[in-house]
Amino acid sequence: MTDQIASPVRLCAVDAPDQPTPSAELEELYRGFEKELLVPLWTEIGDLMPLHPTSKASPHLWRWGNLLDLADQAGHLVPVGRGGERRAIALANPSLGGRPFATPTLWAAIQYLMPGEDAPEHRHTQHAFRFVVEGEGVWTVVGRDPVPMNRGDFLPQAGWNWHAHHNAADRPMAWIDGLDIPFQYATESQFFEFGRDEISEEEHTTPERSRSQRLWGHPGLRPVSAPGSQPGTPLLSYRWVDTDAALRDQLELEAEGHPGTVEPGHAAVRYTNPTNGGDVLPTIRTEMHRVRSGTETAPRREAGSSVYQVFDGSGTVTVGDVSWSVTRGDLFVVPSWQPFSARSEASASDSDSGALDLFRFSDAPIFEALHLQRTHVEGTN
Amino acid sequence: MTDQIASPVRLCAVDAPDQPTPSAELEELYRGFEKELLVPLWTEIGDLMPLHPTSKASPHLWRWGNLLDLADQAGHLVPVGRGGERRAIALANPSLGGRPFATPTLWAAIQYLMPGEDAPEHRHTQHAFRFVVEGEGVWTVVGRDPVPMNRGDFLPQAGWNWHAHHNAADRPMAWIDGLDIPFQYATESQFFEFGRDEISEEEHTTPERSRSQRLWGHPGLRPVSAPGSQPGTPLLSYRWVDTDAALRDQLELEAEGHPGTVEPGHAAVRYTNPTNGGDVLPTIRTEMHRVRSGTETAPRREAGSSVYQVFDGSGTVTVGDVSWSVTRGDLFVVPSWQPFSARSEASASDSDSGALDLFRFSDAPIFEALHLQRTHVEGTN
Amino acid sequence: MTDQIASPVRLCAVDAPDQPTPSAELEELYRGFEKELLVPLWTEIGDLMPLHPTSKASPHLWRWGNLLDLADQAGHLVPVGRGGERRAIALANPSLGGRPFATPTLWAAIQYLMPGEDAPEHRHTQHAFRFVVEGEGVWTVVGRDPVPMNRGDFLPQAGWNWHAHHNAADRPMAWIDGLDIPFQYATESQFFEFGRDEISEEEHTTPERSRSQRLWGHPGLRPVSAPGSQPGTPLLSYRWVDTDAALRDQLELEAEGHPGTVEPGHAAVRYTNPTNGGDVLPTIRTEMHRVRSGTETAPRREAGSSVYQVFDGSGTVTVGDVSWSVTRGDLFVVPSWQPFSARSEASASDSDSGALDLFRFSDAPIFEALHLQRTHVEGTN
Amino acid sequence: MTDQIASPVRLCAVDAPDQPTPSAELEELYRGFEKELLVPLWTEIGDLMPLHPTSKASPHLWRWGNLLDLADQAGHLVPVGRGGERRAIALANPSLGGRPFATPTLWAAIQYLMPGEDAPEHRHTQHAFRFVVEGEGVWTVVGRDPVPMNRGDFLPQAGWNWHAHHNAADRPMAWIDGLDIPFQYATESQFFEFGRDEISEEEHTTPERSRSQRLWGHPGLRPVSAPGSQPGTPLLSYRWVDTDAALRDQLELEAEGHPGTVEPGHAAVRYTNPTNGGDVLPTIRTEMHRVRSGTETAPRREAGSSVYQVFDGSGTVTVGDVSWSVTRGDLFVVPSWQPFSARSEASASDSDSGALDLFRFSDAPIFEALHLQRTHVEGTN
Repeated sequence: MTDQIASPVRLCAVDAPDQPTPSAELEELYRGFEKELLVPLWTEIGDLMPLHPTSKASPHLWRWGNLLDLADQAGHLVPVGRGGERRAIALANPSLGGRPFATPTLWAAIQYLMPGEDAPEHRHTQHAFRFVVEGEGVWTVVGRDPVPMNRGDFLPQAGWNWHAHHNAADRPMAWIDGLDIPFQYATESQFFEFGRDEISEEEHTTPERSRSQRLWGHPGLRPVSAPGSQPGTPLLSYRWVDTDAALRDQLELEAEGHPGTVEPGHAAVRYTNPTNGGDVLPTIRTEMHRVRSGTETAPRREAGSSVYQVFDGSGTVTVGDVSWSVTRGDLFVVPSWQPFSARSEASASDSDSGALDLFRFSDAPIFEALHLQRTHVEGTN
Repeated sequence: MTDQIASPVRLCAVDAPDQPTPSAELEELYRGFEKELLVPLWTEIGDLMPLHPTSKASPHLWRWGNLLDLADQAGHLVPVGRGGERRAIALANPSLGGRPFATPTLWAAIQYLMPGEDAPEHRHTQHAFRFVVEGEGVWTVVGRDPVPMNRGDFLPQAGWNWHAHHNAADRPMAWIDGLDIPFQYATESQFFEFGRDEISEEEHTTPERSRSQRLWGHPGLRPVSAPGSQPGTPLLSYRWVDTDAALRDQLELEAEGHPGTVEPGHAAVRYTNPTNGGDVLPTIRTEMHRVRSGTETAPRREAGSSVYQVFDGSGTVTVGDVSWSVTRGDLFVVPSWQPFSARSEASASDSDSGALDLFRFSDAPIFEALHLQRTHVEGTN
Repeated sequence: MTDQIASPVRLCAVDAPDQPTPSAELEELYRGFEKELLVPLWTEIGDLMPLHPTSKASPHLWRWGNLLDLADQAGHLVPVGRGGERRAIALANPSLGGRPFATPTLWAAIQYLMPGEDAPEHRHTQHAFRFVVEGEGVWTVVGRDPVPMNRGDFLPQAGWNWHAHHNAADRPMAWIDGLDIPFQYATESQFFEFGRDEISEEEHTTPERSRSQRLWGHPGLRPVSAPGSQPGTPLLSYRWVDTDAALRDQLELEAEGHPGTVEPGHAAVRYTNPTNGGDVLPTIRTEMHRVRSGTETAPRREAGSSVYQVFDGSGTVTVGDVSWSVTRGDLFVVPSWQPFSARSEASASDSDSGALDLFRFSDAPIFEALHLQRTHVEGTN
Repeated sequence: MTDQIASPVRLCAVDAPDQPTPSAELEELYRGFEKELLVPLWTEIGDLMPLHPTSKASPHLWRWGNLLDLADQAGHLVPVGRGGERRAIALANPSLGGRPFATPTLWAAIQYLMPGEDAPEHRHTQHAFRFVVEGEGVWTVVGRDPVPMNRGDFLPQAGWNWHAHHNAADRPMAWIDGLDIPFQYATESQFFEFGRDEISEEEHTTPERSRSQRLWGHPGLRPVSAPGSQPGTPLLSYRWVDTDAALRDQLELEAEGHPGTVEPGHAAVRYTNPTNGGDVLPTIRTEMHRVRSGTETAPRREAGSSVYQVFDGSGTVTVGDVSWSVTRGDLFVVPSWQPFSARSEASASDSDSGALDLFRFSDAPIFEALHLQRTHVEGTN
């Protein structure tokens, strides 16, 4: 998380409070600290213990078109295989030292697979998901279960599950990967293992539904044969048809005068682990938000960071002091405790299509598990 | 966690696998990535996704005598008051870029208070504890409850509790502070609030037992008037007399042929939250280990990092490839997945006093809450 | 749970062990016990502390045709209204003293509503569900949300929710009610409150889907606006189309060589609370089992009791020493620790229709919450 | 739970609402019900679904002197051995049909062991505890660990642990046993197994402290070697010295103006499982209450039943409409939802000794695990 630099001790604090009166003795003391690899709190407290999170990360937007272009170039130049493992290209937040970290805890990348290509099998403790903003033709094989990927599908995959990808189509396909790589990098919890170099013929099948969906994809039902609560979800794909219906239902309930939406004109569903009702992954929360045409959401701050991808529609999003016009596929970052709001572009004509659909992932489960969560919505207490 | 450096994108991986064949097009592609703030996985995977944790932190030892000397000098040169808040001097791991981080997640500091001094009241989301290796005379006032501090006492204090310190004695006193500052710095979850500049006359009383101990310090009993499970322990001091007795009991049980110790000659207790039996703090585990004279513990690796302080006795500790002779007060760091073992020095004469007592704190609750814990003890599967 | 009888003390145990030698003094002692309202353990231990559960309840079968006939007669003779509250007719296990208890913990009744009738609103701590083996036209209004009832639908309703029923059709409708009335009677935990005598016009609407289904009936998704884990499920109907698909999927997975069924030819799903993945009700577990044509399930004992209703198909079920041929709608009881197995009748011709579908409810959540569950499947350890 | 009586169906309800108009057809219908083993709700609802719990059990008091006399007679007449297992004599609530049930869920008995006697080893799923109001000399051997029993000691013992008793003294000893026998009888969850007929010489040792106390009896500390949360407490004795100190501390805190007591003059501690902070047994809550001399507690209703034993002092207790003067050793029952209050007798002279100490056990963990708990304290909402 840090770069090794010449001097092992850094005494210059970012927002230091009143400091002790300079003197030769103080200089001497500070040299003593440096020699013994010690750093006083009083020079660092402003940086370390701020009144509220003041993120090192910046709000930033990446345009989908640019990502896709570069990914396609990589598709022609960079092979996929054992060692590099994946043709994944990660968002590097401009304020995080050039590391491929979208936020201090989250990794977001575009992954790209050429027709007929396979990405080799491996497993790792990092929790991961795929989300498909467009395209089709790739199957992710998780624990030997081929899971199709189509526009709007969400595929979580808890740590330490074997997985590979294969593109069964005659066109390239791109999608986004979300992982907790920066978090596990910071806490140093990572394990990794290589799997088979080639997946079997059977796993090259391209079924409409994964076995996991057939077992776990029925609302409110679980197989009696399965064990109880599991840390990561056994449901490996959440299909767009269901997500879309759930959001539409919320807005219709609202129109009929019933509760269900987060706030007027703002529907949202969270992807959950059917074995315990919690988040799909121990470290990553994932949601789909729909902002009705013409609606603006209330600015909301949360301790913890998020990455959003525009799934459909267009509009304007505001993160702290920055606003962007966004459209399908664009990705942006909301750092910890920065206020976020979204406005859907009022469409002149259309019925439903004016809504802005935003896929979101965040590190909220980490904060909740450790009792560190905080939220503030403007206009509330 | 990172320093902002000139180039926003770093492409040189530490342990990069075979890379694509260099070419002009590839150079061009990489320039495109850099321009768009993107970083490919294939150049970084060795650093980001190692086969097992390869900690950025180093094993390191700080001698108590040196710490105490420097803290005493600071006692004469650096006032304690609002702004700097505490005369605390932190261990800066030599491989963590000069930041005052003992490990990537843990802060450890010596704190020092001169006779009659007060450290002002504040609160913060960072979870904290004090541990006293020697001395007496300071009371920590937590939520207006004065808690005495004596050799061997352990004082946890969950985040967002008001606290201040005052030294009622006519001698300086030192102790160690442990906090999750680096973890909350990395995840950006910190909130901080200033309290009263002066604590009341009543809080300057110096009772033998804190009110929290009177309510919660009776084994297996809880006040019926209290709420159920609480994230942080309501018991604010764990007295040495109890810890010592628990360790002695374990070794005596072992001598009588009964289970109880961790391994032969190695007793250990964990400080727990009496409302739920779990760790005293949501992010920090704390334990006291006693290694019987002449005993050596089995090398043990854990995902996650620890800081130890020698409480009593002397011996040799080994972390990874490094060994040190240690004695009372010495502090050292065990980075993630580095094997650790301790050997108590066989004493020629003595009864009980040959044991090596080690106070330990670690980030294990974070790992357990997120299902990331792993342990390996040499000689087991 | 007991009838008051003349002598307040009963000394004759069912399976008494060797008793003390009779004598005048012993007689005198026993009279002393009786006078002081005392009973010795040694005369009762065989009944109170058996080697394994020896249920007071008997296996028993009720034929659906008979129930329906009597319910229809009641429909013409007994009005539904405030006071009696429901036209429900309960199974009275022949060995439970004539009380309307199917098992020591479970109530099962047929409820019957004539065309146009309303059953008045009330609420109670007893947890309840409805299950529809045939018919349609009734809506259950739970918390003002009209929930349709059709063949195969399962409608749980946790304690203390307001509810009423109305029959919007021009034909009578019957269904079964399951509650934990005997359990709450035994533990004396019951509260009851009358609601409105008439439900509103709006609640007489007959929507295809309840509001609860629109909010909670999407697989793996939850409304972000809803609170976290709730003791009783917020999903008020589990539709047959989903249950049927889940069972079919399990059998197809098995046919393809994949896990999913409970045992060969035996698929089963459990109805779950989407907020926590657990049982839909705190005291009642509910499942649907499908036994493929020609299959016989392994005899299985469980601590705790169950009631089954045949939903479809026909076959033979065995409870302890008793076997019955069963067909659609038949209800039967499996007392605690009695072995149960089911055999589906092999059908000469048909494809899928030979399967035996069994709806089951049990008191398993009570046993699991209190760490009292035990299961033994014949042929396993 | 019920006695089998001639007619299998009982149609006469206790508090029946308005019933259908009698007619020949109705008579015929009821005969049809009876024949088919059916019972309508409308005749039973008043008994089954009351507005609040109306307990079948009565408030009742048993005098310790009478119990002790009869137990001593039994000591001379009734041997202890395999089959009868224990010389235990149970309270039979006068309204529970002569069964040895103090309340519908709880068993309370006096157990008596003559000098030198052993009670043989066995185990059962019923959760149990011992509480000692006077005497000493008996050791309970739980899982081969001899646990001493002295005045004020509380010894819980979760289900399915092997246990035996031996009296090492030259005088008889009495104590009370509390179990969930009626609850497990009602739910039919009981298993039982005989152990060794004789315990070993080693288990006849009479240590001051049990091994369990040495491992688990240190406040806020747990052995690192032990597993995590366990359903039943591993601490097998809670010594009076600790309980007394905890109660005294609460009253002193109150006198100093600090919170801690339940209400003015009323201290109370709950015995807890140190592995999870919850109740010591999955089905039984145990507490010690101290009512300061001259104090009267606020009447309190709880769903669920309790048994109390006066441990020290004297006073007046009121249950529903009944009041009794009570003194050391007296036992009484508080049925579900009956208001309970206690008044300590103001002592003319003494300092501390005027307090009324009440040991209590209840079925509250059952109610809480199943979300059925309710409490109402007079004068509150």
